[in-house]
Amino acid sequence: MIIITQPTATEEQIEQIVARVQAFGVEAEVSRSESRVIVGVVGPEELVREKLLANMPGVEAVVPVAKPYNLASSEARGAASIVDICGVSIGCDSAVALICGPCSVESREQILSLARKVKDAGARLLRGGAFKPRTSPYSFQGLREEGLRFLAEARNETGLPVITEIMDARDLPMVERYADCLQIGARNMQNFSLLKEVGRSHLPVLLKRGFSATLDELIMSAEYILSEGNMNVLLCERGIRTFETATRYTLDLSAVPILKAKTHLPVVVDPTHGVGLRAFVPQMSLAAVAAGADAIMLEVHDTPDVAKSDGQQALVPETLSKLLPRLRAVANAIGRDL
Amino acid sequence: MIIITQPTATEEQIEQIVARVQAFGVEAEVSRSESRVIVGVVGPEELVREKLLANMPGVEAVVPVAKPYNLASSEARGAASIVDICGVSIGCDSAVALICGPCSVESREQILSLARKVKDAGARLLRGGAFKPRTSPYSFQGLREEGLRFLAEARNETGLPVITEIMDARDLPMVERYADCLQIGARNMQNFSLLKEVGRSHLPVLLKRGFSATLDELIMSAEYILSEGNMNVLLCERGIRTFETATRYTLDLSAVPILKAKTHLPVVVDPTHGVGLRAFVPQMSLAAVAAGADAIMLEVHDTPDVAKSDGQQALVPETLSKLLPRLRAVANAIGRDL
Amino acid sequence: MIIITQPTATEEQIEQIVARVQAFGVEAEVSRSESRVIVGVVGPEELVREKLLANMPGVEAVVPVAKPYNLASSEARGAASIVDICGVSIGCDSAVALICGPCSVESREQILSLARKVKDAGARLLRGGAFKPRTSPYSFQGLREEGLRFLAEARNETGLPVITEIMDARDLPMVERYADCLQIGARNMQNFSLLKEVGRSHLPVLLKRGFSATLDELIMSAEYILSEGNMNVLLCERGIRTFETATRYTLDLSAVPILKAKTHLPVVVDPTHGVGLRAFVPQMSLAAVAAGADAIMLEVHDTPDVAKSDGQQALVPETLSKLLPRLRAVANAIGRDL
Amino acid sequence: MIIITQPTATEEQIEQIVARVQAFGVEAEVSRSESRVIVGVVGPEELVREKLLANMPGVEAVVPVAKPYNLASSEARGAASIVDICGVSIGCDSAVALICGPCSVESREQILSLARKVKDAGARLLRGGAFKPRTSPYSFQGLREEGLRFLAEARNETGLPVITEIMDARDLPMVERYADCLQIGARNMQNFSLLKEVGRSHLPVLLKRGFSATLDELIMSAEYILSEGNMNVLLCERGIRTFETATRYTLDLSAVPILKAKTHLPVVVDPTHGVGLRAFVPQMSLAAVAAGADAIMLEVHDTPDVAKSDGQQALVPETLSKLLPRLRAVANAIGRDL
Repeated sequence: MIIITQPTATEEQIEQIVARVQAFGVEAEVSRSESRVIVGVVGPEELVREKLLANMPGVEAVVPVAKPYNLASSEARGAASIVDICGVSIGCDSAVALICGPCSVESREQILSLARKVKDAGARLLRGGAFKPRTSPYSFQGLREEGLRFLAEARNETGLPVITEIMDARDLPMVERYADCLQIGARNMQNFSLLKEVGRSHLPVLLKRGFSATLDELIMSAEYILSEGNMNVLLCERGIRTFETATRYTLDLSAVPILKAKTHLPVVVDPTHGVGLRAFVPQMSLAAVAAGADAIMLEVHDTPDVAKSDGQQALVPETLSKLLPRLRAVANAIGRDL
Repeated sequence: MIIITQPTATEEQIEQIVARVQAFGVEAEVSRSESRVIVGVVGPEELVREKLLANMPGVEAVVPVAKPYNLASSEARGAASIVDICGVSIGCDSAVALICGPCSVESREQILSLARKVKDAGARLLRGGAFKPRTSPYSFQGLREEGLRFLAEARNETGLPVITEIMDARDLPMVERYADCLQIGARNMQNFSLLKEVGRSHLPVLLKRGFSATLDELIMSAEYILSEGNMNVLLCERGIRTFETATRYTLDLSAVPILKAKTHLPVVVDPTHGVGLRAFVPQMSLAAVAAGADAIMLEVHDTPDVAKSDGQQALVPETLSKLLPRLRAVANAIGRDL
Repeated sequence: MIIITQPTATEEQIEQIVARVQAFGVEAEVSRSESRVIVGVVGPEELVREKLLANMPGVEAVVPVAKPYNLASSEARGAASIVDICGVSIGCDSAVALICGPCSVESREQILSLARKVKDAGARLLRGGAFKPRTSPYSFQGLREEGLRFLAEARNETGLPVITEIMDARDLPMVERYADCLQIGARNMQNFSLLKEVGRSHLPVLLKRGFSATLDELIMSAEYILSEGNMNVLLCERGIRTFETATRYTLDLSAVPILKAKTHLPVVVDPTHGVGLRAFVPQMSLAAVAAGADAIMLEVHDTPDVAKSDGQQALVPETLSKLLPRLRAVANAIGRDL
Repeated sequence: MIIITQPTATEEQIEQIVARVQAFGVEAEVSRSESRVIVGVVGPEELVREKLLANMPGVEAVVPVAKPYNLASSEARGAASIVDICGVSIGCDSAVALICGPCSVESREQILSLARKVKDAGARLLRGGAFKPRTSPYSFQGLREEGLRFLAEARNETGLPVITEIMDARDLPMVERYADCLQIGARNMQNFSLLKEVGRSHLPVLLKRGFSATLDELIMSAEYILSEGNMNVLLCERGIRTFETATRYTLDLSAVPILKAKTHLPVVVDPTHGVGLRAFVPQMSLAAVAAGADAIMLEVHDTPDVAKSDGQQALVPETLSKLLPRLRAVANAIGRDL
């Protein structure tokens, strides 16, 4: 952190700035030129409260130079991470993985049938919600443990590892008994109690970007999980809230190369929620692969017209089958498998 | 709900639309004019999945006519609600209440001293955080139960009822032992597990708007609490995230009259977080009172320059004392007390 | 401007940084501490291209310290400016002024009748559009010169100075013949050709904030006008575009105190466009006065239900008359007249 | 347009609704069911002022069923349009076209040299600005007619057609003498005077989306040009303003398939401005091709570190050359040439 003083700062003001820096438990290093004095912080920058310095008399600007995250940053490791979910590798040079399944688990038959179909269509992981965060208390809230049991059964039959959302820290032991990867939904991206809890789980965590979270905030939320000891975190772009109403959210594909530059973590894209309209999901899936996504998460439903949630945006298995060769061709075009 | 068909819709398509409406367990009422057919839903609209109708062949548009919330809506009661917090009335024609205190409880001395000062300056309720939601896992996270104890002690000494944030459903019994009103923070506005839990508490709940939640989503989250039986909910505008960077958030004061038109619940404004800069908090507090807010929530700190969180935006007690007569004059100007 | 180098920057890199700074025609001042080197720019900062320095090897951060605007900044004058429009003073300690009138001039009778009514209701200036920027080419585009003539006639009869929008630089001589103050609409806030042209006019200019312009961009657009020699500029907040759909735009009242802190120019608020719904315009007008606005601009229409544009948001003269005493009471509450 | 009345609407209210519909010069068609009455508009919907009906007593909702644009809509033509710029076809199944060049024309040597290099690297059109819209009046504003002359010379030498921005309707005759395609910049997307003027030009127009314009507003601005008789319009996505600050704007690639579904016009993507950071332009260009863009517009500069504008985001010709085979491979992967 560098504190730039105003040209008019007095010696007394500079002394107070230095004193406050030292009060945070770090060293202050003063350098003087003809027109102004600059105070550098030597020591762990997270001890220093930037905004309390910025308001002091004589201060022109305070410039943080350390990143606020350590474990997630690309500098923290020599290379991009690979997260392994029961034998499926995601990240770095691994093949782009398709994660498919319904929004909600609705019945045993539904999830077993769909799991087989998405496997045939090329999916390598199975997604499905047993706990559903719904805007309205009157909407379908999920099958809970029964849904988890059906998911586990579908995994056992197809071999597809299961990703499912957890909404409440109290459910962790139960969800861990059935799932292979935990999902933190967009609305819980800053539910810090939950983040800490899954940070102590042995399962990998797919962390969705809040729909109005900056990329730095997403990384800070990943840092919560990493700092509890769980190093298997996947970041997921799923659309941000903007003024545009033609789509449900605005899928921010620039998040892919930027997250991969800032962190070593794999990046997943969920075009289904980003666009919210079935007709445009294929094009955005192709674009996500071209942008460098390590995995693509797609809602697929047998009979989306009667789905209990989000039917309007789910693909049918046949569309997925037709899309697969094009996804693979785009992956190959940028030098990756799928 | 009204389904407008396309002029080109066939009789078969119309039959399918009617059949799907009926499959949701409600009646369909068909009306025909020369140029098109319109299908009305008769029965509880929440049973019908709008988006699944909108995608059907032959459908031009689907128009919901019922509000998605019942208990919160202004029609649900004859008049605006008053929420009583240990004898302090908020809402309807009650005097505008000031809710003041530090961002975080930092020590016993701090909160006792501040509680006395804000009381002297005109505050009628005390706020202070014992659990702090922080973007970084490395930032101060609050004194937890110790902080709650200090808050209760300050309440006992000053008589000011205490509002404090709860972040984790598992903490509810503990928080209920000390607090007079629960606060749900912006980041947890859609933590539905937590909403349901506080919906079963006997304490009133101050629900903050998520910084990218629409007003309808805020009301739906209130509906979660109300639908569990807790009727004492205060809605709080605290700034939304926009493209503007001159302020921390953009305080959306139009939320005040609109929430009061849509619901019967009292509306609180938190100018401190909305603006994020101490120098502009007084003007925005005056504007919030003029817009009709039922209470104003202000961060106040004895020595904001060394506060453990958010010091840059806290007022000192002296500023609050000077602001009070102007706040009261504005309240009087629109026919209210303060 | 201060260039902070990385701790690992080589001497060669520092020399290149210094060389590039000098290539912009300004001096570089190097200061060294133990852990890093800092390069300060001495000379007019606008000559230096910040982003071209930020990308250089060895650079950690580039920190601008000069404001990009000179003439508009609060430091440029000792005190807040007053803009005089035919004898009506706006700004500084002047009484808060009401600027009222229809969205569009629709006929001679309409504008004459309305001008009288808004004058009786307390307005001190008359607004009305003769050229209308409309999203659709098929909407009413204004009466053009005929509309200007009717406005001038209304001014002559009532004595209210006239503010009207100009959309095309080629119309300036014509508009100048009739109007007392030029309005630049939100959609033209960055129509730089037009800004330069009105910067050469003898008439004051009311500059509306673009609905997605930052406050700094608004000030930079004012700077275009000021830099051409026209010092009579009023800044107008009229709502910004956010994700919220309950209102037409989100009225950003924090713009008022911030613009008054950053610049010496008077600040006008247009609650009508900001909210877009007649029912909430009075509360937002009161809030705007409480926030410190120097003038309030309100759409008023005799028969808003049949207005040719924006009828849904216009007040009727009777509502304005009833609102006036409350506006005045709020102005008095903060120590101003109205 | 369909007007849905409230279940409680009286016969008198319904008569008044019908009367107001008829007053707009169209027919009203009433259909009655048991629970409510619905009034349909028969005739050109653009004559009816939706908001004035929505406010009437007894009205529940007004539902427009016609699109507000006619000429631009996909229904207006049997197939997607192809715009021809001096022999280069853009749109429909044509090969994806690269439009490359510097942000600003800086000198004759610069543009001639760059034109040759981008041609060698695969560009099929040349871009370059002679008039520059700059936030600050103190920034470089372009070489004006001299710049246009240099562009024309570069076209004559390389055969690459020239696209250049026009900012002022008064410059049209001059720009038409030199350019092959007119560009309307994002800041002028709702400069309706300028849109009408270029609507009367014989040159094709590339219309950039305003950075906070909805897709429907972009199409309405295209409609301004089309309605003046100029049918050769290209729509260009160039990033929208959101809360995210890691990128200059947020490139909204979902705009590509949506604009192609809503209109028959070709869609161009400008990843350079959307991302604003050179390092991420290649990935977003690949994603834009995968999403279905008909052309990609890229800023290229020989020596971006000393460019007079936007150097931080320009690619060097060598990067473009290396990117080309990957762009082509992605285009082929979705069945197109490049």
